[in-house]
Amino acid sequence: MSSASTGHEIADDRRYVLTLGCPDRTGIVARISAFLADVGGWIVEAAYHADSDTGWFFTRQAVRASSVGFGVDELRSRFAEVAAELGPDTEWTLHDSGARKRVVLLVSKEGHCLHDLLGRAAGGELPADIRAVVGNHRDLEDVTRRHGIDFHHVPFPKDPAERGPAFEEVRELVDVHDPHAVVLARFMQVLPAPLCDHWAGRAINIHHSFLPSFVGARPYHQAFARGVKLIGATCHYVTPELDAGPIIEQDVIRVDHADEVADMVRQGRDIEKLTLARGLRWHLEDRVLVHGRKTVVFS
Amino acid sequence: MSSASTGHEIADDRRYVLTLGCPDRTGIVARISAFLADVGGWIVEAAYHADSDTGWFFTRQAVRASSVGFGVDELRSRFAEVAAELGPDTEWTLHDSGARKRVVLLVSKEGHCLHDLLGRAAGGELPADIRAVVGNHRDLEDVTRRHGIDFHHVPFPKDPAERGPAFEEVRELVDVHDPHAVVLARFMQVLPAPLCDHWAGRAINIHHSFLPSFVGARPYHQAFARGVKLIGATCHYVTPELDAGPIIEQDVIRVDHADEVADMVRQGRDIEKLTLARGLRWHLEDRVLVHGRKTVVFS
Amino acid sequence: MSSASTGHEIADDRRYVLTLGCPDRTGIVARISAFLADVGGWIVEAAYHADSDTGWFFTRQAVRASSVGFGVDELRSRFAEVAAELGPDTEWTLHDSGARKRVVLLVSKEGHCLHDLLGRAAGGELPADIRAVVGNHRDLEDVTRRHGIDFHHVPFPKDPAERGPAFEEVRELVDVHDPHAVVLARFMQVLPAPLCDHWAGRAINIHHSFLPSFVGARPYHQAFARGVKLIGATCHYVTPELDAGPIIEQDVIRVDHADEVADMVRQGRDIEKLTLARGLRWHLEDRVLVHGRKTVVFS
Amino acid sequence: MSSASTGHEIADDRRYVLTLGCPDRTGIVARISAFLADVGGWIVEAAYHADSDTGWFFTRQAVRASSVGFGVDELRSRFAEVAAELGPDTEWTLHDSGARKRVVLLVSKEGHCLHDLLGRAAGGELPADIRAVVGNHRDLEDVTRRHGIDFHHVPFPKDPAERGPAFEEVRELVDVHDPHAVVLARFMQVLPAPLCDHWAGRAINIHHSFLPSFVGARPYHQAFARGVKLIGATCHYVTPELDAGPIIEQDVIRVDHADEVADMVRQGRDIEKLTLARGLRWHLEDRVLVHGRKTVVFS
Repeated sequence: MSSASTGHEIADDRRYVLTLGCPDRTGIVARISAFLADVGGWIVEAAYHADSDTGWFFTRQAVRASSVGFGVDELRSRFAEVAAELGPDTEWTLHDSGARKRVVLLVSKEGHCLHDLLGRAAGGELPADIRAVVGNHRDLEDVTRRHGIDFHHVPFPKDPAERGPAFEEVRELVDVHDPHAVVLARFMQVLPAPLCDHWAGRAINIHHSFLPSFVGARPYHQAFARGVKLIGATCHYVTPELDAGPIIEQDVIRVDHADEVADMVRQGRDIEKLTLARGLRWHLEDRVLVHGRKTVVFS
Repeated sequence: MSSASTGHEIADDRRYVLTLGCPDRTGIVARISAFLADVGGWIVEAAYHADSDTGWFFTRQAVRASSVGFGVDELRSRFAEVAAELGPDTEWTLHDSGARKRVVLLVSKEGHCLHDLLGRAAGGELPADIRAVVGNHRDLEDVTRRHGIDFHHVPFPKDPAERGPAFEEVRELVDVHDPHAVVLARFMQVLPAPLCDHWAGRAINIHHSFLPSFVGARPYHQAFARGVKLIGATCHYVTPELDAGPIIEQDVIRVDHADEVADMVRQGRDIEKLTLARGLRWHLEDRVLVHGRKTVVFS
Repeated sequence: MSSASTGHEIADDRRYVLTLGCPDRTGIVARISAFLADVGGWIVEAAYHADSDTGWFFTRQAVRASSVGFGVDELRSRFAEVAAELGPDTEWTLHDSGARKRVVLLVSKEGHCLHDLLGRAAGGELPADIRAVVGNHRDLEDVTRRHGIDFHHVPFPKDPAERGPAFEEVRELVDVHDPHAVVLARFMQVLPAPLCDHWAGRAINIHHSFLPSFVGARPYHQAFARGVKLIGATCHYVTPELDAGPIIEQDVIRVDHADEVADMVRQGRDIEKLTLARGLRWHLEDRVLVHGRKTVVFS
Repeated sequence: MSSASTGHEIADDRRYVLTLGCPDRTGIVARISAFLADVGGWIVEAAYHADSDTGWFFTRQAVRASSVGFGVDELRSRFAEVAAELGPDTEWTLHDSGARKRVVLLVSKEGHCLHDLLGRAAGGELPADIRAVVGNHRDLEDVTRRHGIDFHHVPFPKDPAERGPAFEEVRELVDVHDPHAVVLARFMQVLPAPLCDHWAGRAINIHHSFLPSFVGARPYHQAFARGVKLIGATCHYVTPELDAGPIIEQDVIRVDHADEVADMVRQGRDIEKLTLARGLRWHLEDRVLVHGRKTVVFS
C-alpha cells in the first residue's frame, strides 16, 4: 500500500491516482500503460480486475506526481482522449493525492465512531478534511468542537412523516462543503430516496450487523435472539433500498452464550469502528469502484 | 479442555461428564458440588452459565472416573435424587467418556466433509464410533468402504413429493444404530418435519453460509450476487423450520471481488469442514446444551 | 459476561467478585459454593480451571451484591476462614464491582492507546477511574487535560544511566494514587527491575509485536525485515526480564508484501488498542489470575 | 482468482502465466502489456508490486491460452527478447496452466497434512500431480497406496551424523521426478545444507509455529510453556538456516489457559493443514515470487 496513506507524507509521496472501469477487451492495459509511460509516469501502485460475470474491466493506478512534468488538470485533459478510445461507457477519475478530500459526518447520540474518526484524522492516518458534523441530538457537540470542527444541530421530529424539512436542512448543511464523502457514523435515520440518489456513491453508512443478516432496527437484539456465534458490522454505500447498497467492507467478532445484548453492543463497537475506518479510508484513497450492486476494492 | 478429547487417552483420563439445566436459584452449585465431593469426585472441568434472559441455569462438570468408587450407572442413579430436588423441569445427562458415541453420516455427492470426518475419527481426534454412511448417490461409497465402514445407497426420486419412502428407508438404516448423532455432511436434502422431530437434538447439519444470511439453496451464489466480503458456514441442530435450528458453531473466511462462485465454493469447503468438525466434537463430548432456539456451548 | 462491564450499570448489577488459587484437591468447589449458599449469594458468573501441569486450582465467582445481607468487608472477613481451610498457599481476592478501580497511565509521544482508553473510560465501557497521566514528553498533555485528567511531565535524560531520578519521580506521582493498574500505554521506557517488583501484578504493558517474536525495539521494522504475513500485539504484566512477563492477551492482523513499515505501524495501532483495552478490562474486572509465568483469564 | 484453480476446468480456462522480477524503472508495464496486446493476449489476471525498499519490480500476468495464436514455447521464446530489454538481472517464468505440476511429498509419522493434500489433489482443488511419497517410517504407506500413489520407505539412523546416505537416497527418489515442489509435510528432519541449495525455491516446509517464534523442536511445548494466547503455523521455503526461509503463508488460532499441549497439537493440526495447502497452491499457480529473504505473493 501507498505510504501516502500513513500520515508521514513527504513531497515525493504525492501521487496522481487513476481509476477506470470499462467493457473488457484486449489491449486496455497496453493503451493505459503506454499513455502513462509517455508522460514519464513512474507507477508505484497498479491493480487490475477483469470481471468475468459482467464482462467489465477495472483498474487503479498511482504514479509519482513528481515523475510527471505537469499538473493533475493537464494530465486529466490528456487522459480524456485515451478514455474516449475505450468507449462511451468508460468511467474514470484522476485525483491528486496531495489534495485532502472533504468529509461531512452525520451523527446521533452514539459517539464511538465519531470519536474514532476524529482521532484518526487528527493523527494524520485518515486523508480527510473533516469539514463539519451534523447531529440530530446535541450529545456529541462538545467532543466535536474540542477538535475545532463545526457542529450543527438539526432536531428531528418524532413522527417520521414530518422529517422532510429536517432532512432538507441537513442536505443544505452538507452540500455547502461539496464533500467527497458523507459519512453516516451511527446516524440512525433512514435517508429519503431522493437524498440517497443525490449523494449516490458518496454517502457511506456503518450498519451494526453482518449484512444481509439483521437488516433494519436493533440488529444486536436480533443477533441475540437468533443465537449467532459471531456478530459483525458492514460499511456500505447508501442506496434507497434499506441496508442493501454496495458493500465496501465487513468484519466479525466472536460471541458466545454468556454475551448478553449489552455485551454484544460493547464488543460490536470495536468492529464498527474498524470497519468504518477501513471502508472510509479506501473510499478517500480512490480504492473503491462501484459496479451495479457490488464493489471492487483495490485495498 | 479435556485431554480426553485428543486421542491420547490413558486409563486415568476417563471421565464421568454431567450436564444439567434447570430454573436458576441460590444453592444449585453448592448442592451439585456437595454431591460430587461426597462420592469423592475429582473435578477436572467445570463450567456454569446463568442465563438472565430466560432465568435458566446450566452446568457441565467432568470428574475423573477413577476418583469415584463405582460405575457410571450407579452414579447416575444416585444423582437422580439431587436432580429431583432441583425441580421437575430439570434436564440432565451423565455419560462415561470412555464409551465412544455412535454416529451415522448422511451424504450426497460432495465428499470434503466426509473425507475430513473419516480422517479425524481414524486419527483418534473425534470421539466417534462411525457406524454407517448413507448416501443418496454412490459417489462416496468407495472412500467410505476403504475406511472399513458400511455404505448404504438410498436413491431419491426427482420429485420431492415422492421421497417419503426413501426418507423412511434412511430412517430405518440410521435407527438400527441408535446413534447419538446423525450428521448431515452436505446431504443436500431437506428432512421431513417428523424426521426432524424424531432425531431432535441429535441431527446435526452443516449449512454453507453464515446464517441467518443465505438460507436455502445455493448460498454461495447468493453470497456472490450480494457482494459480501466474508463467507461462512454454520453447524446447527436440524429442526422442521429450514436452516433455523439452534446454532452450535459458525465461522467465516474473507473473500474479495476477484473471487468467483467457484472460488467461494473452494474456500468455503475449508470453513465447512472445520465448523462441522468442531460442532460435532462438542456435541459428542456433551459440551452443547440446547435451550429453546439457542445453545449453550461449554467449549 | 457481566453486564456490569457495559456501562449500563443499575443497582442490582453490583457484584461481589471472588478470585482464588490454591493446590488442587477434591472438595474445593463444594466448600466455596457451600459458603456462598450459606450467605445467600446468588451466583451470576462462575468459572473454574484445574491446571494439570502445576496441580493448581483456580476459580472466579461473582454473586449479586444485593443477594448477600451485608457488605464486602464482612464477606471478606467471613471468607478468610474458608480460605484458611484450603491451605497456607491459597491466594484470593474479594472485590465490590461497584468500586471503580484506580488507574494511572504512563505515556510518551504516541497517542493512539491513550486516546482509545480515554474514550472507553468516558463512555463507561472501562470500569476505570483514570487518576493521572504521566508522560516523558508533553505531546499528549492537551488531549489528557481536555478529558479533565491531570497530566504530569517528567523529562527523561538521553543517557539511560542517568534516568534513575526520573523513574523515582514517576514512581512517586503514580504511588500517590495507590493504583490497581499502572498502564504503560506505549511508554517506550524499560522500567528498572526494582520498579517492576514494586508494581508486580499491577504494571501492564502493550508490546507492538506477537511475543515472543520481536522482543525489544522497533518490532515493526523487525517484522518487515523478516517478511511475516501477520503482525500482532501483546498485552502483558511487566516483569524485570524485558517483554517476558505473563501474557494477558494477544491479537494479530494480516499484512502482505505491499505493506511497508509505515503501513504496519498504522495497521498495528488498531491491534494495539484492542489488545490493551481487552487486557486492561479483564484485569480491572478481576478476570486475570497470574500463576508463575502464565495467566488464567476467565474472560 | 483464477477459476483454473477450482477443479472445474474447461478448455477456455487454460492460461499462460507470466511472472517477472527486475529493477524498477518507468515503462516496464507498458513494455510488457504492449507485447501481450501484440500477440492478442486477453489478460484475465494482472498484479504488480513495486518494492520501494529494494527498488525491485514484480508482476504476474495470466492471459487466456486460447486468445494467443500459438503455444507456450513460442510465447516464451518471443518474450525472451522483451525480458532482455529489461536488463540482465531480470528473472521470469512462463507456464501453461494446463500442465499440472509435479510434486513429491516427504513425510514421517504424522498423517494429517498428507491426508489433507491427498484429498485436495483427488478433489481437483490442488493443481498437483503427486508423483510419490517418501517416508522415514512406514506409518503412512497404506493411506498413500490407497490413493494409488507410490510410497518409498527410507529408514533414518538414530544418530544424526550417520544420516547422510539416507538423505542421498531421498534425493535420488525425489529427483527422478524432477518435481516443481518438494513438500516437507511434517517430515521432522532437518535437510542438510547442500540439499536445501539443490532444491532452492522448490522445497516447501510447514512449521508448526508462528515464526519467528518457537524455532526448532517441539514448538507446541514451547508455546505452552510461554503461555501465548494464539498458536500458529508457517509455510516457508527451506533454506540452510533452520526455519528461517522466505515465508509464503502464516495463520493462527486462539488458545487459552485450559488448553494443554495435547489440545494445542490437535487444534494446531487444522492450521497446519490450511496454511500448507494455501502456500502450496499459490506456489503451484506461480503466485509466489521470492526476493532475498522475503516473498511477494499475488494471491
